[in-house]
Amino acid sequence: MIQKYVYGTPFETEAVTVQMEAVCGAPAYGDISLENGFCFTCLLDAEDVVYGLGEANRGINKRGYRYISDCTDDPEHMEDKSSLYAAHNFIVISGTQTFGLFFDYPSRMTFDVGYTRMNTLTVTCENADLYLYVIEGKTPYEIVKQLRRIIGRSYIPPKFAFGFGQSRWGYRTKEDYREVAKGYRRNHIPVDMIYMDIDYMQDYKDFTLNEENFSDFPAFVQEMKEQNIRLIPIIDAGVKVEKGYDVYEEGVKNRYFCQREDGSDFVAAVWPGDTHFPDVLNPEARAWFGDKYKILTDQGIEGFWNDMNEPAIFYTPEGVQRAEEIVKEFFQDTQGKVSFFEAKDAVLGLSNNKEDYASFYHQANGRQIRHDKVHNLFGYNMTRAAGEAFERINPEKRFLMFSRSSYIGMHRYGGIWTGDNKSWWSHILLNLKMMPSLNMCGFLYTGADLGGFGADTTRDLLLRWLALGVFTPLMRNHSAMGTRDQECFRFEGVEDFRHIIGIRYRLLPYLYSEYMKAALSDDLYFRPLAFVYPEDPHAVQVEDQLMLGDEMMIAPVYSQNAAGRYVYLPEEMKFVKFLPDGSLHEEILPAGHHYVKIALNEVPLFIRKGKCIPLADFAECVAALDTEHLTMIGYPSSAYIMYDDDGVCKDYDNPSNRRILEFV
Amino acid sequence: MIQKYVYGTPFETEAVTVQMEAVCGAPAYGDISLENGFCFTCLLDAEDVVYGLGEANRGINKRGYRYISDCTDDPEHMEDKSSLYAAHNFIVISGTQTFGLFFDYPSRMTFDVGYTRMNTLTVTCENADLYLYVIEGKTPYEIVKQLRRIIGRSYIPPKFAFGFGQSRWGYRTKEDYREVAKGYRRNHIPVDMIYMDIDYMQDYKDFTLNEENFSDFPAFVQEMKEQNIRLIPIIDAGVKVEKGYDVYEEGVKNRYFCQREDGSDFVAAVWPGDTHFPDVLNPEARAWFGDKYKILTDQGIEGFWNDMNEPAIFYTPEGVQRAEEIVKEFFQDTQGKVSFFEAKDAVLGLSNNKEDYASFYHQANGRQIRHDKVHNLFGYNMTRAAGEAFERINPEKRFLMFSRSSYIGMHRYGGIWTGDNKSWWSHILLNLKMMPSLNMCGFLYTGADLGGFGADTTRDLLLRWLALGVFTPLMRNHSAMGTRDQECFRFEGVEDFRHIIGIRYRLLPYLYSEYMKAALSDDLYFRPLAFVYPEDPHAVQVEDQLMLGDEMMIAPVYSQNAAGRYVYLPEEMKFVKFLPDGSLHEEILPAGHHYVKIALNEVPLFIRKGKCIPLADFAECVAALDTEHLTMIGYPSSAYIMYDDDGVCKDYDNPSNRRILEFV
Repeated sequence: MIQKYVYGTPFETEAVTVQMEAVCGAPAYGDISLENGFCFTCLLDAEDVVYGLGEANRGINKRGYRYISDCTDDPEHMEDKSSLYAAHNFIVISGTQTFGLFFDYPSRMTFDVGYTRMNTLTVTCENADLYLYVIEGKTPYEIVKQLRRIIGRSYIPPKFAFGFGQSRWGYRTKEDYREVAKGYRRNHIPVDMIYMDIDYMQDYKDFTLNEENFSDFPAFVQEMKEQNIRLIPIIDAGVKVEKGYDVYEEGVKNRYFCQREDGSDFVAAVWPGDTHFPDVLNPEARAWFGDKYKILTDQGIEGFWNDMNEPAIFYTPEGVQRAEEIVKEFFQDTQGKVSFFEAKDAVLGLSNNKEDYASFYHQANGRQIRHDKVHNLFGYNMTRAAGEAFERINPEKRFLMFSRSSYIGMHRYGGIWTGDNKSWWSHILLNLKMMPSLNMCGFLYTGADLGGFGADTTRDLLLRWLALGVFTPLMRNHSAMGTRDQECFRFEGVEDFRHIIGIRYRLLPYLYSEYMKAALSDDLYFRPLAFVYPEDPHAVQVEDQLMLGDEMMIAPVYSQNAAGRYVYLPEEMKFVKFLPDGSLHEEILPAGHHYVKIALNEVPLFIRKGKCIPLADFAECVAALDTEHLTMIGYPSSAYIMYDDDGVCKDYDNPSNRRILEFV
Repeated sequence: MIQKYVYGTPFETEAVTVQMEAVCGAPAYGDISLENGFCFTCLLDAEDVVYGLGEANRGINKRGYRYISDCTDDPEHMEDKSSLYAAHNFIVISGTQTFGLFFDYPSRMTFDVGYTRMNTLTVTCENADLYLYVIEGKTPYEIVKQLRRIIGRSYIPPKFAFGFGQSRWGYRTKEDYREVAKGYRRNHIPVDMIYMDIDYMQDYKDFTLNEENFSDFPAFVQEMKEQNIRLIPIIDAGVKVEKGYDVYEEGVKNRYFCQREDGSDFVAAVWPGDTHFPDVLNPEARAWFGDKYKILTDQGIEGFWNDMNEPAIFYTPEGVQRAEEIVKEFFQDTQGKVSFFEAKDAVLGLSNNKEDYASFYHQANGRQIRHDKVHNLFGYNMTRAAGEAFERINPEKRFLMFSRSSYIGMHRYGGIWTGDNKSWWSHILLNLKMMPSLNMCGFLYTGADLGGFGADTTRDLLLRWLALGVFTPLMRNHSAMGTRDQECFRFEGVEDFRHIIGIRYRLLPYLYSEYMKAALSDDLYFRPLAFVYPEDPHAVQVEDQLMLGDEMMIAPVYSQNAAGRYVYLPEEMKFVKFLPDGSLHEEILPAGHHYVKIALNEVPLFIRKGKCIPLADFAECVAALDTEHLTMIGYPSSAYIMYDDDGVCKDYDNPSNRRILEFV
């Protein structure tokens, strides 16, 4: 059962798609105070688990830290970071009392999940203007499914998007892209997409192509497609301020950009230098911005990634003025009243500054609203702009779309990647832990930058991370300019990369099938073990294994120089390792704790007792995948219902998409 | 067997105390090239393990990353950091070939341990002026002990230093210290030391006391001592430039400070603003600086910590000038040729700048040498200044001394703490992994800032970290200004802190005994499992358990919200948990893999088969510890040789210090 409560005058985020009447009175759980903004408090028992928060730091169980929903472009995801790129205000308390809470509030919100005191959950925000959805159910899993039912169907990408993609910030020319394509194809390492980071644009102008490097772009898109490789360009939030640039000119003319209080267009410097932000909360401006994607789809592009849409700000003219005074004073007298640390903070504080976010406005829901009051909706509505436009561009066709920043509701229009992570072993585990939490909040098409975006990777880190990425719907290797080359073919022993990425393709019939089933029934693709084995007290604690669909459990290795790992089996399972010679190691393991050996070039998975999964032959791209001749693995005398379709159209409910595969 | 090789004209670091003849020819292992500086290369087999590097990032097995010996004040110890505060150039390759290498080279040195190619170890430095010690032995453990024998006996602190200490950057007044003392004593949480961070000084001037806050300091030292609490002040490397300040005046007059090429005293801004660095590589200046510690020992102080001695530099006048030009150009034209990132880097690059380190000089070994050529020796020689002075101040007495920066050789004069870590769960594990590596390099008195220095801690993180800190010789809770209060009594449920820290004191007879045995026989206090069970192939991989002395294995919990952990037993052991009610859970576990439950308020340890350890009653300070009435735990029908002494004098070889305790 879901009950909706209204406090103050909430902003209509359209996160929830089902019309619901609000109820009066106080929720049956916790205490709410409206004395100082909004505050929800409840006590937690020692064993209670708190799930949710989607793209957030730390564990599947969120207990023990303080999380702040405040979409932030901060690429340093250490353990103490409270805000990442997204705001997903859904939590489930599971234990003595079991209930879910969705706080539909688009500005900064703090979740103190036993941080200040270990036994207290406190959720606070500055303005008591929000909808609170209180969800009751027997289990956290049931509660999650109820939320999913009211927020609308999750985004479904085209099937090619389940292939492997290569990305790097720094590819500039056609030759750069050809080299990457050749590196993969010549080494027979499967690949389906190459991502175009910001350098493909002319001066970082959205919807343009670098004139020197990309003459006759449609022909180049076609050249790549002939190799079964799709180019996936990035789109940034900020529109370059440049006389004569049509997007800029139209936006200014039609007042489609966010404005200062005085009505002038707000200026924020990002990659192109000075930019304006399209007011994606204004439906008219959103439609206008969305239609721009057609410039690229008309040239053969079938997918995009939306970036910098927290929106990130490097600095503003106003901010520079504030900082300049402080820094100059330090330079004038380094032993004077402005300390080195103040000067440093002034420079560092230029970016993503609160004052800047409080100095521009949207036209939304028929009124003017200050950006900081709806900050967490920007990435959502930028991606919605694209998603709504795709329906106009070609309503029959699926486009690939994922975003960096997001809010619940955006899951209907696109996926997300988990942002600018690092080449850290700990980020394999963070990747894993985020997956079920994101699924709970509706984000099914998601994954991390495999190998790590920032910092220098190592061959073993990339291999181990790929062995997790094999299972995430979005499987992409992405790295930052200035870091070590990270394309798989740059390392010694390319056969190991071919093998591991090859497993992705061999498993694709199962992975795609489970993705589609989850999306079409508002279910989870990844589940915490506790959702499947709620009666197992140890399963609740497992933070480094996941259930994938109804048949599989995964347990990747995430420690350097480890030859294996511990794994907990809540029930008997078949342990399957894909060995580098193409054969399978299969072993039935009883319920309980095990140490299993997993070499650097092996991919492990576990098949639940009495279940089976289909396996295709190795293929170098999704188009080459033979989904008719499948091998079944797992427990004999079982069957699997496989979903499949053409991967392009939206004919999801066609009964012929489902067939029963028997494993005799 | 140890063979010494000479390349070029090495700087005499005095890391090695034994006189050895150099041999001619090439080492029996690897290849050395002197074409471009110095380069040692050898191939690694897949299963080879590389030990060593002391205070370095990542694992006990150093394979898979690139480490740079370049003492650096950088408090952000993420996985990708290559340089921490120390330079410990000793590694052991264990596997197909087993040998050790100590590169006695005091400048920047790079260890590529399978980073560029997984099967290649490369050690490089710019100048081919070094001693290389090649050590042969049957096992890595034997090789380590051989190194230890040539670098001299490890520092031995007074016994009180094995108690628990509380620290925080931000204590200012006597009242602050009294409040901390009271917080511990009233709550009966044991404590022996309170550390004085930089604010006790007058304007951050070394060897001064804040005039307003510390009138009659000797009386205050005494007041604390009456509560069995010792005050341990910090000493920073930089001496404030201030007319009339005696240390400054003497240093200038006697030319004891590091100088620029033109002979002027080099200026670096640190906490006090502009400072000069005492030239601790110059024996005369070192003696002069060391004697200054007497100013504080005369007031009753018995221990110190040396900080900022990489040496850290916030900025220099020359650096400010360089940065100012860049930053001003950005401010003048934010869309111009200097980008925001260049301006930001210019400001961030002010600190610990290479150009600055190459712009001042030492007078050492009778010649002038540029600082960057001997950079890694500064902390070593600052601590040596103190250690040598203590011998003059009171040759019979042990003083507490530990340092942030270090080089092998410094282990004879003091311990180290592992620098400014963070309140991250991953830093519990990093703490654990550093311990045996540091021991290998001679540093026995060592530990991390428990609870984490930077960032906000949580109660559970602190409890879990303390349960590791119970076993580290240096056991200190330390936190940074601006972070959450971290003293144990600030949290709910103080009884859990009393219990866990109490276990430290109950174990002290064993811990002190094992420390002294290790120090007196050039052995390790903490050993990797592989050193004790070299024939066990799984033991080699264990990176989250340690052997402590000959009787014990430790395996702390380092994951949030975990109710226990996996542990590997190479042989049968007795699993002991100290329960919060004061009782013990004792359970014999067979060799193999286990999952053991360990609650947040429990301390686990494992006693090896056939061994026993002594246990004292709870005490609130070392002085109150009853080491006569001990309980034995472990395997009956065994005995333990306990070392004990008065904890103050240096009468180490007195046979009465050792007694046999039988467990019938």
